[in-house]
Amino acid sequence: MPRTPVWKSIAETLSEEIAKGHYRPGDKLPTEAKLASRFGVNRHTVRHALSDLTERGITRSRRGAGVFVQSAPVEYPIGKRVRFHQNIRATGRLPDKNVLRIETRPCDATEAAALALSEGDEVLVYEGLSLSGGAPIAHFISIFPTVRTPGLRAAFEEISSVTEALKSIGIGDYIRAETRVSAERASTTQALHLNLRDGEPLLRTVSLNTTPDGTPIERGITWFAGERVTLTVTPDSVTPG
Amino acid sequence: MPRTPVWKSIAETLSEEIAKGHYRPGDKLPTEAKLASRFGVNRHTVRHALSDLTERGITRSRRGAGVFVQSAPVEYPIGKRVRFHQNIRATGRLPDKNVLRIETRPCDATEAAALALSEGDEVLVYEGLSLSGGAPIAHFISIFPTVRTPGLRAAFEEISSVTEALKSIGIGDYIRAETRVSAERASTTQALHLNLRDGEPLLRTVSLNTTPDGTPIERGITWFAGERVTLTVTPDSVTPG
Repeated sequence: MPRTPVWKSIAETLSEEIAKGHYRPGDKLPTEAKLASRFGVNRHTVRHALSDLTERGITRSRRGAGVFVQSAPVEYPIGKRVRFHQNIRATGRLPDKNVLRIETRPCDATEAAALALSEGDEVLVYEGLSLSGGAPIAHFISIFPTVRTPGLRAAFEEISSVTEALKSIGIGDYIRAETRVSAERASTTQALHLNLRDGEPLLRTVSLNTTPDGTPIERGITWFAGERVTLTVTPDSVTPG
Repeated sequence: MPRTPVWKSIAETLSEEIAKGHYRPGDKLPTEAKLASRFGVNRHTVRHALSDLTERGITRSRRGAGVFVQSAPVEYPIGKRVRFHQNIRATGRLPDKNVLRIETRPCDATEAAALALSEGDEVLVYEGLSLSGGAPIAHFISIFPTVRTPGLRAAFEEISSVTEALKSIGIGDYIRAETRVSAERASTTQALHLNLRDGEPLLRTVSLNTTPDGTPIERGITWFAGERVTLTVTPDSVTPG
């Protein structure tokens, strides 16, 4: 088995200490000199470990001020009602969206099956970035059957929240029927969008939202920055209410 | 924005066609010569695209026979009762486990909080690989409070299934109280265990199982090979029953 490089095991030790709360979000880590002395290595090795933590989003380096612990990952409940703006607000951060694309096109066979449409039926495509406290945490592409969501395209020109846009066209409630979660590596484009390095791990969810009577209205694919977001599943979060 | 290399866009096209079912699990892909002609590139470029698909676990190359589509990802429901052996059997594959470690040690503060123990209380550590149809799909480390699971260590020497081992010591039912899902990159050790390349994406779940009366009995961390496993969450799968 290959030997773990020293900088890597230092990075692991520090990230475990952060995970356990020995250093908390906002805390400044000890100086390079102090860490070098603690681990019995030179400052170059410490710098390597610290830049690894920063690249992984665990710490943030502020020039001249030191290295600080980043906020904990955003906890994102996957329940019966999944609402982006509400989920982010619940963490004390400001939710926002950057819209990348709003357009209509014919749906393909997979989308038709998911949305109970015929292949080639028109869908509205809404693509963008989800921000939490100004930082991008996810890239999403949602599609809506235009026949069931008249006026939604115009609504999205004004309103970035899916919940609010649907409400504005008379769809007051919707329910998460299914979420499928896998992991994949960020593409070059996604890495640029999400401030990640190429190939960083993403959590990919494919979701189906329906009206309360079970009519599909949205199929969404979302790629969450996998080390910044934790999806939580509890029986309670999926119980009606 | 950097230009996508040709081999990569060919790999994307083929993986989409596989995802859409144009090529199904077990199907042989067209020969290199046919793909080169279809995409208007040389065979070297096709080979690059095909080896990318194989490295991502989407296809399997069989020397002299060609390139075949791999089975679809294992669908793994995260519900109120999560049972590895049952989940895998439901996909028509044989479940199995390779045990890496069975030992006892004092728990740390995070584990104590999750399991409602005091820091330093003894826990039983059960670490291993979960196999589906002979292929490793996950690396897991579970801990059990020894005070609430007397005899479990001996049971694991005979029985690899957690459900069956718990049953043998008189715990006939347990419930998934919470699952937290994030994505991270495979460590060198995990890559070796799961037949992945270093840094491939993993789905990491941290779960808590309790007895029906709410007493914590197992905290598990599982790293699923992210491109081979899809976790599914539906309201039904989390409803009692």
